[in-house]
Amino acid sequence: MPQYQAPLADFQFLMQDWLALNDHYAHLGLDDFDGELANEVVAQGAKFATDVVAPLNRSGDEQGCTLADGKVTTPEGFAAAYQEYIANGWNAMLGPVDYEGQGLPYTMAVPVHEMLNSANLSWRLTTMLTESAVLAMRKHATKELKDLYLSKLVTGEWTGTMNLTEPQAGTDLALLSTKAEPQDDGSYAITGNKIFITGGDQDWSSNVIHMVLARLPDAPKGVKGISLFLVPKLLLDENGEPAEPNALSVGSIEHKMGIKASPTCVMNYDGATGWLVGEPHQGLACMFTMMNDARFQVGLQGLGAAEASFQGALTYARERQQSRAPQGVQQPDEKADAIVFQPDVARMLLTQKTLTEGCRALSMLYAKYMDIEHHGSADEQREAGKVIQFLTPVCKAFMTDMGLEVTNHGIQVFGGHGYIREWGMEQLARDVRIAQLYEGTNGIQALDLIGRKLTRDGGDMLAATCDAFGELISAMDNQERRAHAQALLDDWRATSADCLGMEPADVAVAACDYLAYTAYSLLGVLWYSMADAAQQSDNSTLAAAKEKCCAFYEARILPRRDSHRLAFQSGAANVLSVTGSEFDYL
Amino acid sequence: MPQYQAPLADFQFLMQDWLALNDHYAHLGLDDFDGELANEVVAQGAKFATDVVAPLNRSGDEQGCTLADGKVTTPEGFAAAYQEYIANGWNAMLGPVDYEGQGLPYTMAVPVHEMLNSANLSWRLTTMLTESAVLAMRKHATKELKDLYLSKLVTGEWTGTMNLTEPQAGTDLALLSTKAEPQDDGSYAITGNKIFITGGDQDWSSNVIHMVLARLPDAPKGVKGISLFLVPKLLLDENGEPAEPNALSVGSIEHKMGIKASPTCVMNYDGATGWLVGEPHQGLACMFTMMNDARFQVGLQGLGAAEASFQGALTYARERQQSRAPQGVQQPDEKADAIVFQPDVARMLLTQKTLTEGCRALSMLYAKYMDIEHHGSADEQREAGKVIQFLTPVCKAFMTDMGLEVTNHGIQVFGGHGYIREWGMEQLARDVRIAQLYEGTNGIQALDLIGRKLTRDGGDMLAATCDAFGELISAMDNQERRAHAQALLDDWRATSADCLGMEPADVAVAACDYLAYTAYSLLGVLWYSMADAAQQSDNSTLAAAKEKCCAFYEARILPRRDSHRLAFQSGAANVLSVTGSEFDYL
Repeated sequence: MPQYQAPLADFQFLMQDWLALNDHYAHLGLDDFDGELANEVVAQGAKFATDVVAPLNRSGDEQGCTLADGKVTTPEGFAAAYQEYIANGWNAMLGPVDYEGQGLPYTMAVPVHEMLNSANLSWRLTTMLTESAVLAMRKHATKELKDLYLSKLVTGEWTGTMNLTEPQAGTDLALLSTKAEPQDDGSYAITGNKIFITGGDQDWSSNVIHMVLARLPDAPKGVKGISLFLVPKLLLDENGEPAEPNALSVGSIEHKMGIKASPTCVMNYDGATGWLVGEPHQGLACMFTMMNDARFQVGLQGLGAAEASFQGALTYARERQQSRAPQGVQQPDEKADAIVFQPDVARMLLTQKTLTEGCRALSMLYAKYMDIEHHGSADEQREAGKVIQFLTPVCKAFMTDMGLEVTNHGIQVFGGHGYIREWGMEQLARDVRIAQLYEGTNGIQALDLIGRKLTRDGGDMLAATCDAFGELISAMDNQERRAHAQALLDDWRATSADCLGMEPADVAVAACDYLAYTAYSLLGVLWYSMADAAQQSDNSTLAAAKEKCCAFYEARILPRRDSHRLAFQSGAANVLSVTGSEFDYL
Repeated sequence: MPQYQAPLADFQFLMQDWLALNDHYAHLGLDDFDGELANEVVAQGAKFATDVVAPLNRSGDEQGCTLADGKVTTPEGFAAAYQEYIANGWNAMLGPVDYEGQGLPYTMAVPVHEMLNSANLSWRLTTMLTESAVLAMRKHATKELKDLYLSKLVTGEWTGTMNLTEPQAGTDLALLSTKAEPQDDGSYAITGNKIFITGGDQDWSSNVIHMVLARLPDAPKGVKGISLFLVPKLLLDENGEPAEPNALSVGSIEHKMGIKASPTCVMNYDGATGWLVGEPHQGLACMFTMMNDARFQVGLQGLGAAEASFQGALTYARERQQSRAPQGVQQPDEKADAIVFQPDVARMLLTQKTLTEGCRALSMLYAKYMDIEHHGSADEQREAGKVIQFLTPVCKAFMTDMGLEVTNHGIQVFGGHGYIREWGMEQLARDVRIAQLYEGTNGIQALDLIGRKLTRDGGDMLAATCDAFGELISAMDNQERRAHAQALLDDWRATSADCLGMEPADVAVAACDYLAYTAYSLLGVLWYSMADAAQQSDNSTLAAAKEKCCAFYEARILPRRDSHRLAFQSGAANVLSVTGSEFDYL
């Protein structure tokens, strides 16, 4: 596969022409930031992703991780790349300034995260989890715990993990059974087994800080009896340096379909010393603090893989010559035309491109509202929070479903060579497949969207999201395009409002199709908006390309919306009436 | 993953209630065969697939194949299973009776092939290629060559391979450059490199018979200058026994995404001795003799993987308990309800089930027309041939696309565990991914359907296919269901007829969406037909299940037809207008 190239021109278009970051930062009073700095951050991030991380992607997949004598070894070059990453401050981008963070706007960090995912999804994962641990601690940990641990997590000197899943408790955390016994010194003894722990151990950092869900002795049953604990791999000495090993160990590392260079660990806690983060029995609420961010970040993995696959497919399609194009000979001096001229290959490439660029716009819009949620006026923060709440499951589920689809198109463009490991195209599909499963399966995301986000407060989040997309439409110049976008948004809003009174079981049947219907609708608005913004720019080549992509999306992708709508409007009976043995062959 | 169970009840329903095999065989004068024998063959095939082949599937994936000293070693147990397969006569099912074949109807063999694919796709592949070589020889080889080679290929004492692809010539065989020099003794010296050769070597059989495409010295350029040659691994002595090694070797074996237990070889021919099969320069026509069969067989791989995945997902969904079902507590004595009661999981299972059973019906209908093409009256043979021609690309492309979708639903039902190799669910998705690529990519199938099959002879194959499906509708009892099915067929026929006058480039843009539109339409007719046949049977539980599945398909799968139709009816401009750098970021 050709070397990954950062899509800098598309970021620039989105940041400057589409989102107008200068105005955005000025409006939020972020005086230290402007569009130029954003460009610079993204350009430097691109350099790191392409030069340092991307070259380790194939070898990482082949080497995988190993566990010996209780220690995990990651593939060659991974630890060194991490040292360079933290030395250059990338780990601290979003961290709080009072704990050595840079407090960058999301609109600067999100492009960097996308590029890291494109370059090497396995490598990126561990740093993503550290960011989650930072978020959980920042909001819920005591000052004492923060002073001991937070700066090291922000800089990346130490890494973080999230310990939720147990063998019997995945989607249903009510079933989790890890125990926390209070000790006389105010700490807790944590005992239990956790599975699917990303970066449970590695050879990158001098300590690993585990955020662990467990039950106190007096805990109520169910999810209301779960508390969050900080459990370091190495206990700190009086100087705050890692010293004695804690009573925890890596039981094994999983054999997986992909992300083989990321150690997915079984963790055993045998009376390990931990400290409470947040209030007793409020562990789930503490986890939800970082859930929006983590779920969005998983969505970015789908986007990153899609971009890498599109690039690989486009390069190959321009080089690989087979047959003549049916619309006429394209390369008369060659024995055959490049397959990029084959209409069906072009169709696959445009499917990849319009889905990927559409999702990139979605991710940047999300980042904009994250900025507003952090830095806007009180009113703005509240409204932005609703948009974020609503869009989080859409980003997580749709962008990862899209990631699988696009990486499979990438394989298909390569023909039989797409199936061969050395080309790297099949790895992208294997790696991204996990993203539909973790941080809540995409089915759970869909239930969250239609069962909670859509209906809460009488459709308040729906209204805020409509306003956010309506704002994009208001900024559009071309009347016809604006009318198309408005019709799309109105149709979606009305159809969504119809779902507000549904019964829980009906909601559950409708969920996935409703989410897909929503995502294809909103991506349509984004495409109209991008085409319009490109038209308003002074780049006529860009304007033509975005307009054609918009037309492609409208004609060939948007119709999927209709089939999903028909499916979820067909009612729940066609699913719920099938019971018991009727699933079997009779 | 639970042990694979053969779907015998569904085969019985399709063979007895739906296809009425007794009448079918009687009508064709196949007096040696009846429905009871068909049941017996399928039951014995099920035993072999489940007891012998299925247990080798996971270990085969982990062990893979190795090449050392020019010899390929397949995973443990594979060779022994093959010896049992040929000893029990399975390899000879479809072989000609005058060369030790059993001459079974396709309606008996196809279920066995599906089950072998479910059990172990890698293992099945080599035997499938031998059947292709038999077909090519049967029609085109001289009696002398047949007498020397054919019986051994039919029994499976020797295996066969197909050598088409070269590094520079995949989809475009016009570019192939392997040479065949005539020798004084009537043989040819074959020189060139072939890639992607399934079973190019293995440790199963005492000889390997390669069917190789190459060019004679005086050959015209392009595909009209390709000839077919038989090139044995070991040359035969005067007694017809394998003796001296031929001048050919395995250069390497490919590292692949899946089907790791199937050796995919790079073959080097260095003046190897071969014999012409068929007329000079008619190699492509000879290959097309077996193309329908081979493409259909690849479609069966999609079906087989889908069935295995559905079974795994259903079993897991019944065992795995997480959360309570939103429609009310289902298992009050347990801590949580089995996830099969979660509406979204049931929706995924029904998607798997209705796609899989729909494709199984399609494959059995195809088998019925294969029987007619071989044994019907001259008129019947001609008409059946048209149906087969038309349905071949639909079976190949749709059943393999469906295979990838269904195996991915299977992973999703398992949640994070679906990503773990030991469960076996991710292997099904990796293994089946090849089926969309080989024997002509699915894009090539779609071009074949809309560009050749649909339009040839003014839509003659379309008409024959409509008649075939119309016959199913005529046999239906329930008037309402019949009206739905007829409307669906009429709509598809009219829309298809509209495509007859399209320009070549427009056809190429429309191809994949037209194929999907066609497949979803035809599967709809099949579902109405199956529901009706089940109603007419004396099994009321079966009738209820098929009726509910039909309703599910109609409400939740069939709407996809509309989005594909809208896509291909949108015209070619939205693809063809995008040129050159407009694919890039600008």
